Amino acid sequence: VTATPVTADVTEANAFARRIAGYKDRVERVLERALSLPDPGTDRLGEAMRYSVLGAGKRLRPTLVYLTGEALGAPLPQLDGPAAAVELIHVYSLVHDDLPAMDDDDLRRGRPTCHRAYDEATAILVGDALQALAFAVLAEESPSGPSAQLRLEMIRVLAAATGTSGMAGGQAVDLAAVGRKLPETAIEDMHRRKTGALIRGSVVLGALAAGVSGGPEFAGLERFGAEIGLAFQIQDDILDVEGDPAVLGKSTGADAAHAKPTYPSTVGLERARLRARELRDTAIGALAPLGHRGAALVQLANFIVNRAS
Amino acid sequence: VTATPVTADVTEANAFARRIAGYKDRVERVLERALSLPDPGTDRLGEAMRYSVLGAGKRLRPTLVYLTGEALGAPLPQLDGPAAAVELIHVYSLVHDDLPAMDDDDLRRGRPTCHRAYDEATAILVGDALQALAFAVLAEESPSGPSAQLRLEMIRVLAAATGTSGMAGGQAVDLAAVGRKLPETAIEDMHRRKTGALIRGSVVLGALAAGVSGGPEFAGLERFGAEIGLAFQIQDDILDVEGDPAVLGKSTGADAAHAKPTYPSTVGLERARLRARELRDTAIGALAPLGHRGAALVQLANFIVNRAS
Repeated sequence: VTATPVTADVTEANAFARRIAGYKDRVERVLERALSLPDPGTDRLGEAMRYSVLGAGKRLRPTLVYLTGEALGAPLPQLDGPAAAVELIHVYSLVHDDLPAMDDDDLRRGRPTCHRAYDEATAILVGDALQALAFAVLAEESPSGPSAQLRLEMIRVLAAATGTSGMAGGQAVDLAAVGRKLPETAIEDMHRRKTGALIRGSVVLGALAAGVSGGPEFAGLERFGAEIGLAFQIQDDILDVEGDPAVLGKSTGADAAHAKPTYPSTVGLERARLRARELRDTAIGALAPLGHRGAALVQLANFIVNRAS
Repeated sequence: VTATPVTADVTEANAFARRIAGYKDRVERVLERALSLPDPGTDRLGEAMRYSVLGAGKRLRPTLVYLTGEALGAPLPQLDGPAAAVELIHVYSLVHDDLPAMDDDDLRRGRPTCHRAYDEATAILVGDALQALAFAVLAEESPSGPSAQLRLEMIRVLAAATGTSGMAGGQAVDLAAVGRKLPETAIEDMHRRKTGALIRGSVVLGALAAGVSGGPEFAGLERFGAEIGLAFQIQDDILDVEGDPAVLGKSTGADAAHAKPTYPSTVGLERARLRARELRDTAIGALAPLGHRGAALVQLANFIVNRAS
């Protein structure tokens, strides 16, 4: 880190914020298109899917796809499919995790959760249909873009990040951990699956969509994604303790109320903050093979551990 | 249909039964392998997935993949992936449909349903993880077999059969129809999505895995799958009225108890039987482009409308 005048920092931060906002708008349009289903089964199902996906959310995962892909020189349209796919998987997991049988949450992204706004059966189907849609979007025919081989690899990566080795497995560990005290390594493993796998997957998909599937850049990005994914979840745990519900758009204190072991509850807030910064530094270090092309990902890594929502 | 001596019929029927039993054993081993997860999240999740998938079930959908693929000359190992994938999707839908918020069923394939044997949260995750596993299996790297382009097409077909235009959409229509009277065409549409789409998809996947993706054979098989899929569901509705719970491995009368409009409740048992046979005949007619290579699929079509379980 070199010393730069404060005004330059501010200008740079503003430019980065505009870039992120641009990705957010862009993926919103892609999602809107993907959810203009010719045949949603029932109006209620189609509506509930749109309600759950559109109009809110940080869109961190699509942003990672776009930032990574652009860093490697991919044109934006080539990144739209994977950007939408990772967000669809993310939203499906939120809808299912919020169900009464799971975390039983009433509020999400500042609005009633899907099963509250609609009903439980619809929320189960919304999640199921969003998962199928994610794979459909990724497998879509496209005249340009990565080869069929690379697209199959993208589907393998997304499936692995979604299933037992990733998100679903992590949620199972999470549920099993309720009311128990876990060692720090077990909490890390849980977080790496539950949240980390899809964040890592988003970075990997961005690389694959840019045609990069091996070599030091790819390895560095994989590592970056894995470390930043864990840092993100630790910051999430911290915000659940000390965040502002109005800024977060969801209630805080949920982890404690559910007797869920978290990073702060296991090692304390101070050590949790330290660990998040440590992981950010490792993540940034892993970007070395990209040289100056990694600059925007560095900014995102800083944003992830400094965010208030 | 030509007149043949009864003994020849019996011999032929026995040979067909052995062939079907062989496919059932084969896909069991493939599923067993797919469910030997290196990393199931928790033992409980891995166990519940195996409990739900292995050891029971007619394996109709894998059988359709194998029969179709073999009719078109594909070697069996090339059909294992799609055969397992369609069964994984089917089982995920059973596990979710049985949930208390959906059909609230206690018995499935002669055993307690997944949420009864385990718990609701686990059953939700089992379904989610099985869907991801289905796409993972289909996208798996394989040295031989269909091209990457055809495999992407298989993924598109499976995703369409699973999502709003297929199974999830059909289940939404089904739930919305509870307590209502629907016209025959609406019941057909619901069945074509809820059950028909994946059965049609199984036939199409068998064709694609054999490298056939167009032309009169492909079109005939698509039609065959669509018609036989609807016939299957009508027979299912009939068995729910007049079947033997001991043979079926599940309670009967569930549709009436849930006030679900079905084919028999809408048009009567006699017309339902007639319609199933009509659809079977159309399905068999659609196999004409395959000539004698369609013989086993004809036998399966007859089995589907004559089955007692």
